[in-house]
This record gives sequence, C-alpha cells and structure tokens, in this order.
Amino acid sequence: ARKYRIAVIPGDGIGKETTPEGLRVLDAAARRFGFELELTEYDWSCDTYQKTGRMMPDDGMDRLKDSDSIFLGAVGWPGVPDHVSLWGLLIPIRRGFDQYVNLRPCKLMPGAKTPLANRGPEDIDFYVVRENTEGEYSSVGGRMFEGTDREFVSQQSVLTRTGTDRILKYAFELAMTRKRRKVTSATKSNGITFTMPYWDERFAAMAKQYPDVTTDQFHIDILCAHFVQHPDWFDVVVGSNLFGDILSDLGPAVAGSIGIAPSANINPEKAFPSMFEPVHGSAPDIAGKWICNPIGQIWSGAMMLEHLGEKAAADAIVSAIEKHLAEGGPRTRDMGGNAGTVDVGKALAEVV
Amino acid sequence: ARKYRIAVIPGDGIGKETTPEGLRVLDAAARRFGFELELTEYDWSCDTYQKTGRMMPDDGMDRLKDSDSIFLGAVGWPGVPDHVSLWGLLIPIRRGFDQYVNLRPCKLMPGAKTPLANRGPEDIDFYVVRENTEGEYSSVGGRMFEGTDREFVSQQSVLTRTGTDRILKYAFELAMTRKRRKVTSATKSNGITFTMPYWDERFAAMAKQYPDVTTDQFHIDILCAHFVQHPDWFDVVVGSNLFGDILSDLGPAVAGSIGIAPSANINPEKAFPSMFEPVHGSAPDIAGKWICNPIGQIWSGAMMLEHLGEKAAADAIVSAIEKHLAEGGPRTRDMGGNAGTVDVGKALAEVV
Ligand SMILES: CC(C)[C@H](C(=O)O)[C@@H](O)C(=O)O
Ligand SMILES: CC(C)[C@H](C(=O)O)[C@@H](O)C(=O)O
Repeated sequence: ARKYRIAVIPGDGIGKETTPEGLRVLDAAARRFGFELELTEYDWSCDTYQKTGRMMPDDGMDRLKDSDSIFLGAVGWPGVPDHVSLWGLLIPIRRGFDQYVNLRPCKLMPGAKTPLANRGPEDIDFYVVRENTEGEYSSVGGRMFEGTDREFVSQQSVLTRTGTDRILKYAFELAMTRKRRKVTSATKSNGITFTMPYWDERFAAMAKQYPDVTTDQFHIDILCAHFVQHPDWFDVVVGSNLFGDILSDLGPAVAGSIGIAPSANINPEKAFPSMFEPVHGSAPDIAGKWICNPIGQIWSGAMMLEHLGEKAAADAIVSAIEKHLAEGGPRTRDMGGNAGTVDVGKALAEVV
Repeated sequence: ARKYRIAVIPGDGIGKETTPEGLRVLDAAARRFGFELELTEYDWSCDTYQKTGRMMPDDGMDRLKDSDSIFLGAVGWPGVPDHVSLWGLLIPIRRGFDQYVNLRPCKLMPGAKTPLANRGPEDIDFYVVRENTEGEYSSVGGRMFEGTDREFVSQQSVLTRTGTDRILKYAFELAMTRKRRKVTSATKSNGITFTMPYWDERFAAMAKQYPDVTTDQFHIDILCAHFVQHPDWFDVVVGSNLFGDILSDLGPAVAGSIGIAPSANINPEKAFPSMFEPVHGSAPDIAGKWICNPIGQIWSGAMMLEHLGEKAAADAIVSAIEKHLAEGGPRTRDMGGNAGTVDVGKALAEVV
C-alpha cells in the first residue's frame, strides 16, 4: 500500500484538540482509499519552551526532514512572545523547508454564514497564493539613535527574481487547473516604488507565458475593497508575503469561513516536506474546553492529501465537510450549535 | 468677515466635474455662515503634463504655499504613468507641506448600500488615521544584478520617532473628542519584526499619556477581517502609511461609501496648507459625461471647513448629505438614480 510519513505537531491551545480530529478523519480516508499514514508526534509548543527554553530541540528540523508532510495545529500562547513562539517554530519550518507557497482556499461553504449580504456559494470560490519566504518579512533591519529624538527603525523588503518568479509561476499553473483560468495580482506600485514595480514587471513577463490565462491587477487598497464588494471577480489571487497574508485572512472573512479555513505551506518541488495548518490560532479563550471547531484542521488534512497525490481522498473530505454543513450535521458553538470538538470529528470521519 | 484663501486643483477626469459642485456647496455654506472663500484655480493635471512635460510648474509649491487650504479633485489619467502623475503632483504636496495625517471617516450614511448584511448607520462610524509621509512609502531602495538570475530589488520601510509619535498623538487627540474614546492600532509585529515592534512600543508609550482612552491592537491581517466581521468595534483606527492606506479603502468599502468618501491630508500645526480630496479617482470610464457623484468632493469640502475652524458650516454640510441620502434626493447612477453631477450639487447647495 502507498505509505506516507506524517510529522504531527499539535502545538498550543486548541491545536491539541483539533489535531486528533484531523487525524481521525485522515485515518478514515486512508482506510477507504487504501493508503497508510505513519504518524510521528512531536510535543513542540510553548509548554516545551517554558520547560526547556526552546520551542523545538536543536535537531528539530533534522527530525522533520524525512517526513512526507507536517500536520500542524496552532502555535502561540499568552506569556510567550511571538518572536519566541512563532520565530522559534512556525517561521523556521516555513523558511528552512523552503515552503515558498502559502495557499489558502476562500470558499463560501453551504450553510456557512458570510457577513456579506446576498452572496451564495457560487459567488465566493477562489484561492489566495501567498509568497511565503521573502518580501516584507525580511531579516534585514535595525534601529538607530536609540532613545533620542532622532531615533528611527528601518526594515528592508526584498523581492528576488527567483522568489518572485516561482510564486507567480505557481499561481499561473494553479489557474490552468481551474475553470476560469484567471490570475489577479496584488500590487502597490503607485506608492511602494522600488519593490512593487518589479513585481508588476515579473507578473507581466510570466503572464506572456500563459496566453490561456486571463489576468488583472489591483493595488492592495482597492483590492481589499473589491474582496468585499465583488468577491465573485476572483479565481486565483497572487501576492507578496504581506499582501498575501492580508488577503488570505480577508478572503476567509468575507466567505464566513475564518474559523474553519485551512492553509498549506508548500514546497512544490517536494525537496522538503510541506506543512498544513488551519488558519485559526491557538484560541486561549476556549482552549481546554473541547468546544472548538475542528473543521479547519480537517480541511487542512484534505489539502495535505492532495499534495501527497491522494486527490480522490482529498476531494472526499472536502465533500464530506460541504455535505455536513449543508445538511446540518453537529456544529460547534461558533457555528451556532452545541456539539463538542470530538462530535464533529466523529461525524465527519463516518461520512468521509 | 472671516476669509480663507483656497487653492483649487480640479486635476483629471471627473475631478473637473466634481470640484465645481464642491465649490457650489462651499459657497452656499459661506454665505449662510458668514465667511468668505477666495479661490485661485490651477489647471495642473495630466493634460498639463502632456503639453508641458510637467504636472505642475517649477514654482508650483511656492504658489500654493500661502493658501489656507488646497481643494483637490483627482489625479491620474491613462497614458501617464503613476510615477509621473501621482509623484509629480499629489505626493509632492503631501510631503512638501508635511501633511502627515491622512484622515478618512468611515461612516454608513443613511440610505447608502453597504455590502454587509444586517448593518445600520449605528454600526459603522469610525475614523482611519493614516501616517502620510514615511513608513513603507520610502525613497530608499534599488535594484541589483539587473537582468540576471541573481536580480533582486529592495526597499526600506522607515519609521522615525518624530513621525510615529506625532501620528499616534493625533489619533489619541481625535479619540478624546469622540464619545467612545477608543484607539485601535494596526500592527504586524509578529511578522515584520524590526519596524512594527517599534510602532507597538511607541503606541504603548503614547497610550500611557491618555488614561481616558481605551486601546487595543490587531495585526493587519486579522484587523482587515474584523473590519468586515465587526465594524462596530472601531472608533479611531491608526496605522502606518501602507496599513492606513489599506484600511482607509476597506473601511469605506464596508460602509458602502467608497464612491462618496472624503479624505483630508492635514498638517495639524498649520505650518503649511492642508489638502482635501475625495477618495475616488479620476474615473476615466465615466469622465466627460457629467454623471459622476459629487458627494465625495462635497464631503471633502466639509472636512476642509472643519480644519479651517468653521465647524458649524462643516456639520451643516454633513447633515445636508445625510438628509439628502435618507430622504431620497436626486441620485447619480452609482447610487441607483438618474441625476447628473450638477443636479446633486445644486440640490445639496440648496439645503445646506
Ligand atoms: C494614488 C496612491 C499613491 C494613493 C496612496 O496610496 O497614498 C491613494 O491610494 C490614496 O490612498 O490616496
Ligand atoms: C503568525 C504570523 C507570523 C503568520 C504570518 O503572518 O505569516 C500568520 O498570520 C499566518 O498567516 O500564518
């Protein structure tokens, strides 16, 4: 049987509650579609940090290196600053494994509650493709004249040709697999006049290589407005690290799916393992009560299977979620129900 | 009588149609409230550029310098690149006159169509305060290894203590004049780790000086989501140049007012003239037809009067707009009516 080695990192807070349900559904899909998942669990988290002073052990990346994928819950906990928790676990994995694509579907699921008036599932169904390794999240910067009136900080945004071209190419390739075949570029070349005009230039060059793909581009300010006013305009939206970050929270928000949205951090060449995680964080306010919604984790599992080549199983999970939501399966509190985390996981595992 | 010198720059496209209507209403308000406006009109625009090779004459800034305010229509036209039109007129005025506050009300007007479900005027009524001179719109950057695989571009974001503190102070002072007295900070210190933690640090320091003001802060990604999901959370939202740019388009979009939203570029110390302009651009697709909506321009006129100290007149214009919209006065096409630009201007001038 086909066999995949999965590194599982539940992480913090509700991550510990959603990952078991994600695994429950993955396990059901594996049995039904005839493949095996070999799981190795790592307890790396803010707990570990408070005990050992490190988010992951020194050889953490080495241990993950030979897995086929990483299945992550959530990282972050009050009392541990972000530059420790995120920059000690999440970001090193994204960068160390060159997971240069951050992919997030924005899809109005049947029965989900969009904040928009008069929008149905046919109106919101697109992908945000975010550059995940460079851009505005750079490690070049500093502070000068500290503590004086002349004090200033600066930070460089960096776009390399390699980094820009490969993310654009991914977006166009993705568009080629879709019905509408359209790519929208997020820019701000009218205000950010060194990096963004370069982005536009590379986008135009890449577009020439895909004559079958329709393209357009908007400055990020008006693009955010269009997400709210015309979500039906979009098919594949590609942006830099920061712009992609913004759009991939705003997209699920307009789709009413921010609590259940999945995400994938992908190294398309499979030179390194890719990582799959729900968009929601560790949710300290509800952690420990087993009332959180596991659908984001389960949907992330579907993205993982698709990446591993198990497309039929991936589609089965997404359909199961859609059916579950449409037909009023057990719901957690955030979706207006009373069910617990485990109830939802079990219900989905049964119908997958 | 109190007298103000106003430099009028209609600029491009529909700017030429909206400014006369803005002036019509300002003129009515001046008569009613007993002050005088001394107007000087400048035809600086992309037309001028195509004739003279310059967006404004060499001594342009000098000519504007002694006015009390600048009343601008729109800048930009197809065929003239943004780095020429915007960076030859709009941006030099903002920077040259140290208009470091960009202020935009986000307000659901009665009868306006918000794309959000179940939201009324009481739910959306806040200000975005945007830093308007530094941050991500910097002039430090460049390209290296041009035309090779190693090619990259970089651009520095810069936050100075002076620039950061004065915009934060403005936001807190504005909050002190409002009922809710709340300031929300837009950050991204978990990803952009040199500049944004500094922003947070200065925000915390400023907050200490305003114990009567409630504060919170969100990363820009989730903040954009909250604008859509919970617009009622906000009172005054303060952000860097880029974050403020994004939020001040998204805010009017959720309020359904992007076509009628005003903005102010303010030098609060009045060392230099401030500039008032609608958020919409030059709209080449409808320019020349006299069907565009002049309300954004007229509302910008109200912000100008408030800045000049004519608060009663400013309030009268905003009330006139609200009443006009609530009671179904003549509407342009974008608001579902048939009226021309001039009809709307005349109707508002009558009731101000
Ligand atoms: C035209 C552009 C440079 C400008 C900006 O980003 O400042 C515009 O979007 C605005 O918000 O006034
Ligand atoms: C936690 C944070 C650093 C992260 C990011 O900005 O990349 C998050 O917002 C995300 O989108 O995964």
